[in-house]
Amino acid sequence: MSIEVIRTPAKLRERAFSLRGTGSRIALVPTMGALHEGHLSLLRKARPLCDTLIMSIFVNPTQFAAGEDLDRYPRDESTDLALATECGVDIAFCPTPRDMYPEGYQTRITLPKLAAPMCGAKRPGHFDGVATVVSKLFNAALPHLAVFGEKDFQQLAILRQLNADLDFGIEILGGAIVREADGLALSSRNVYLSAEERKQAPRLQQGLQAAAQRFAEGVTDASVLLSAARAIVGSAPLAQIEYLELRSAKTLEDVREVTEPSLIAVAARFGNTRLIDNLVLVP
Amino acid sequence: MSIEVIRTPAKLRERAFSLRGTGSRIALVPTMGALHEGHLSLLRKARPLCDTLIMSIFVNPTQFAAGEDLDRYPRDESTDLALATECGVDIAFCPTPRDMYPEGYQTRITLPKLAAPMCGAKRPGHFDGVATVVSKLFNAALPHLAVFGEKDFQQLAILRQLNADLDFGIEILGGAIVREADGLALSSRNVYLSAEERKQAPRLQQGLQAAAQRFAEGVTDASVLLSAARAIVGSAPLAQIEYLELRSAKTLEDVREVTEPSLIAVAARFGNTRLIDNLVLVP
Repeated sequence: MSIEVIRTPAKLRERAFSLRGTGSRIALVPTMGALHEGHLSLLRKARPLCDTLIMSIFVNPTQFAAGEDLDRYPRDESTDLALATECGVDIAFCPTPRDMYPEGYQTRITLPKLAAPMCGAKRPGHFDGVATVVSKLFNAALPHLAVFGEKDFQQLAILRQLNADLDFGIEILGGAIVREADGLALSSRNVYLSAEERKQAPRLQQGLQAAAQRFAEGVTDASVLLSAARAIVGSAPLAQIEYLELRSAKTLEDVREVTEPSLIAVAARFGNTRLIDNLVLVP
Repeated sequence: MSIEVIRTPAKLRERAFSLRGTGSRIALVPTMGALHEGHLSLLRKARPLCDTLIMSIFVNPTQFAAGEDLDRYPRDESTDLALATECGVDIAFCPTPRDMYPEGYQTRITLPKLAAPMCGAKRPGHFDGVATVVSKLFNAALPHLAVFGEKDFQQLAILRQLNADLDFGIEILGGAIVREADGLALSSRNVYLSAEERKQAPRLQQGLQAAAQRFAEGVTDASVLLSAARAIVGSAPLAQIEYLELRSAKTLEDVREVTEPSLIAVAARFGNTRLIDNLVLVP
């Protein structure tokens, strides 16, 4: 059976209410397209947990700050739809920016605490754009569950809080980071990397692993753990570190000592390409 | 049959999905309680248009600015429930602030353009609070239609835009202002007025009517129409005018000349009591 493509929020919401009425359990996997194994792993995670699997493809302009890569972000709808079909997606929601943000559109959703640090500090308005578009996707797809990748850990924390705060009643699941053989986290932005940048990019993951190694040896002091990570990441000549931080995995507040599950997260630029990675240290 | 009282958003959403599944058409009338004939007229408007009539009672703290009347706002749930029952309400949604804003709550919804002028300029954060709580009510009640009073004209404009922007797919209806015999618009805050303030309060409506009279005579210049209104409202010694403005009824942008449906709106304080009123001039 071929995949069903829906292009407006109103049509998807109508379809979702009708599916809900027949008792169908709906899962949503939001994406910006340019699907890689990371996305596909989210679809495979959702598939057995639902009756109707909806995937959205929307490169959301409001989550790109001025000067970011909105225009060159990779787009290939037909390949994405073929991959989605292979993974058992029932409905692909593929709106245009005009479908999502018609003339006169102005509503903005913000989570000031969770969006303040890390990527939120470096990408003004980014998480407002994410929270707003995902609220629209939740209202359109009315899912019972939704799956988001853990590579965007801060995004996942924000969306869990958004879901609770606005009473969406959705079960939010995280999907583990999928990596290349050399440890680089999969990202649609990896295609931007030059050969030399690509060679150095795995240092992000290696730095996080160095911190995890020290933690496994009994070190809980944040500054020591971060130094271990920084030594490795900083040894990549092309990496410009944007942040490298240890924070509570729940509240994203700074931690000095790892006494609760704690996120160690890094963002770095390789030329114009911004990459992120993270792992969680669990005492 | 006695009215059903639900106290948490999660329970109401579950109930609403179940009602939707049986084909029931749901109407929502949000209130802050202290019901008067204005509220009851909204219930009577909604009743024949739906199968299940839901009324919410929630004095929403986030829409009161510091120093406003949150603490003294009138509350009488049992009287409200009796009135609601008389008007055929099926479900009363009566959450506590803690049910709506649990520990850690942080999401805020803003409509920067429509919320900027008039009451938005005078009550910092007010319309963020309104847009946020109504989004929560929409998500909990999943109504097909919702009715709001036209006395709060700016609020109604904001909620129409919110509904469109976040894809709620709800039919939003306005209910005409209900007035005392002497023209004063009904408001739960009228009980705050002293005898002398109460006597002067109808000047708001009389001022708007004076402008409407000049408009009926062919005057379309905003400054002339506003002067006519100001002469009457300003003749009430106890009235301190907060604003008296003519704006597009659709965009709430300033108008110099009434060439499209235009809102003439007033806010004034009588002592500590803030009253608003409005009417729409239609060319």
